[in-house]
Amino acid sequence: MSLIVHKYGGTSMGSLERIKNVAKRVAKWYAAGHKIVVVPSAMAGETNRLLGMAKDINELADRRELDMLAATGEQVSSALLVIALQNEGIPARSYAGWQLPIRTDKSYTKARIESINGDRITKDLNKGKVVVVTGFQGVDEDGNITTLGRGGSDTSAVAIAAAIKAEECLIFTDVDGVYTTDPRIEPDARRMPFVSFEEMLEMASLGSKVLQIRAVEFAGKYHVPLRVLSSLTDPDMDLEVEKNSGTLITLEENTNMEAAVVSGIAFSRDEAKITLLGVPDNPGVAHSILDPIAQANIDVDMIIQNTSVDGTTDFSFTINRSDFARAREVIEQIVSTIGAREMIADDKIAKVSIVGIGMRSHSGVAAKMFRALSQEGINIMMISTSEIKTSVAIEDKYMELAVRALHKAFELDKEPVKL
Amino acid sequence: MSLIVHKYGGTSMGSLERIKNVAKRVAKWYAAGHKIVVVPSAMAGETNRLLGMAKDINELADRRELDMLAATGEQVSSALLVIALQNEGIPARSYAGWQLPIRTDKSYTKARIESINGDRITKDLNKGKVVVVTGFQGVDEDGNITTLGRGGSDTSAVAIAAAIKAEECLIFTDVDGVYTTDPRIEPDARRMPFVSFEEMLEMASLGSKVLQIRAVEFAGKYHVPLRVLSSLTDPDMDLEVEKNSGTLITLEENTNMEAAVVSGIAFSRDEAKITLLGVPDNPGVAHSILDPIAQANIDVDMIIQNTSVDGTTDFSFTINRSDFARAREVIEQIVSTIGAREMIADDKIAKVSIVGIGMRSHSGVAAKMFRALSQEGINIMMISTSEIKTSVAIEDKYMELAVRALHKAFELDKEPVKL
Repeated sequence: MSLIVHKYGGTSMGSLERIKNVAKRVAKWYAAGHKIVVVPSAMAGETNRLLGMAKDINELADRRELDMLAATGEQVSSALLVIALQNEGIPARSYAGWQLPIRTDKSYTKARIESINGDRITKDLNKGKVVVVTGFQGVDEDGNITTLGRGGSDTSAVAIAAAIKAEECLIFTDVDGVYTTDPRIEPDARRMPFVSFEEMLEMASLGSKVLQIRAVEFAGKYHVPLRVLSSLTDPDMDLEVEKNSGTLITLEENTNMEAAVVSGIAFSRDEAKITLLGVPDNPGVAHSILDPIAQANIDVDMIIQNTSVDGTTDFSFTINRSDFARAREVIEQIVSTIGAREMIADDKIAKVSIVGIGMRSHSGVAAKMFRALSQEGINIMMISTSEIKTSVAIEDKYMELAVRALHKAFELDKEPVKL
Repeated sequence: MSLIVHKYGGTSMGSLERIKNVAKRVAKWYAAGHKIVVVPSAMAGETNRLLGMAKDINELADRRELDMLAATGEQVSSALLVIALQNEGIPARSYAGWQLPIRTDKSYTKARIESINGDRITKDLNKGKVVVVTGFQGVDEDGNITTLGRGGSDTSAVAIAAAIKAEECLIFTDVDGVYTTDPRIEPDARRMPFVSFEEMLEMASLGSKVLQIRAVEFAGKYHVPLRVLSSLTDPDMDLEVEKNSGTLITLEENTNMEAAVVSGIAFSRDEAKITLLGVPDNPGVAHSILDPIAQANIDVDMIIQNTSVDGTTDFSFTINRSDFARAREVIEQIVSTIGAREMIADDKIAKVSIVGIGMRSHSGVAAKMFRALSQEGINIMMISTSEIKTSVAIEDKYMELAVRALHKAFELDKEPVKL
């Protein structure tokens, strides 16, 4: 008998039929003697419907009220799931975030969980009940409802699993695991039975949308084993098969861990680049360029500054494409004051990254990456590296080609050998 | 400057356009310097949509979960109203029942309010905010969400008005006041500018659907002046005109009170009658008939027992039509044990009532009622009276005719003269 948290996404909860299927799946786990806590998202489309009404009334709606509004989506799906579980003969009870409580800070629409009181959950589990807890939401110290931002239900599930010391947190979703890259781009992409927290974290922050970054961070910090698996299979499928399906995101030390040098290819098309040419190479020039960008609340990703020639240098940085127009405006205003010759702005940029914990102990990985790209005639504009990833900025029209070339170069379509 | 509670029903909150109109109306009152608390219902149809989903999954859904589900309707409309108010430049904030809290007992789906903490409301009002509080819901002592049953938002509004000592509670609805009878049956029905709590209570319990009985009881108990008025007028209508529109439900002692002998005609078609013929007239016979009915949780309304002839009597009672089949079954089983000759069951019964506090001090009112009905050839089956009302049971096909005859006989189409 294990204590397990199940999380079901919006697609998995997308209709009454699907909610009944979720209930059947949970009932199967319950019947096998497990203690189950379920964290459902709102029914697919519901959060957009609610926020759309608010936007129709007032484009700049108060964020406290947006949270009051949006939090109802998970309350509805949680109550419906309990009703469906009871229909399966399973005793169950739902709790909204504030009822436990799940305490957060006061950052409406993107709050962070500070603590969770698991007492009511534990009490109900010990009475033989399945406990359903609304994802995505909490309550601040003054009793205001907060939400965790899009995808926040993953974080709720992991945080609850940590609070009640669950043995595993299962993220049921509409894909059947974490792949070496997106199978829509590389049909030979391979599902990974295991991936480390660190790799998953890099892949999430580099554009993989399977799991929310904060959920992975939380799982790593509190050592909650996390499994991504499909909710679209037959709910009556064999439990032992289901237990080992999907992808287990686990601690690096795990002895079952595969040890590929490169585990996956991540990518993002939401990039843009701004370059200043002929910038006088004085001390503090980087600060004088990037400070106004930071003041405008724009996050900078990659930065390069060329070697100085004749006392001037070229300075480039990338940003999220949604910040492109604002960033260009900010930099236009400082071109002359810093004495730069010219600004070049380009929003047709993509970022492609290789990720793998094996990169730590293996040299030549980056060189292999650059060679694979050069063989396809893809020009690398910028490079950034960390311990377990190497990212390049390229023209966005080459993105898919680059992903496929790298997937092949690192033989990700083949099972890795154990080191 | 006054402290006023506004309540808006589901129709008044039925679309984003209507919610914007509610915001405009509230903004007008706010601009005139009033402190305003608004209690909205869920958007029209929303509660049915939510409960319909539950029913589709499980006909006998858990009532705690139904409350968890249904309470979201008012949370959505409250948040949207705040967003609309802010769009009008009015500072505003919404609270769910549990956030104040509005404490209720544990009777899910039909909970009763036990106490309301008005501190957060008062604090926000003093900061110049409009406060929006979800109607229809509260929280029990263990932190479970409860709802007050259909129409419960009226009760929420009155209870909040009592808790914060508001000067008036305005019930904005889709009719423009309380009428002497339903204008769909009697086109000459007249809107009453004033009606007493006692009369309103009788009219509500006798079938008038303008206000929930519990709301009227609450208003009477805590001396909250209650006004029923239209939300479908132009929100920019003159405030002084609006203040005196609709119907004020007020304490009898009010010096402005009109003093008609009969104020209104109430009616209900949801009646049924059961008669036992030839019942041996022993002591305790009424008990032996009505006790099994009470055991079956069926409420009896009117009761008559004829004078005994030859040691036997006839015994009749009326019940709600929805209980007819069950009541007949119960009585069928005891016909022989109590030695009655025969049972007659009739579900084509209506009840028509005249209501007026003037009846206390005026004799001959009932006689005038019976004469008016007899002149139309309407046979009276049963009669029941209280201090301020007289009800008769009649064949239901005569109901509309009886209402019109009584409305005319008591000259309710004319302004009453002051006594």
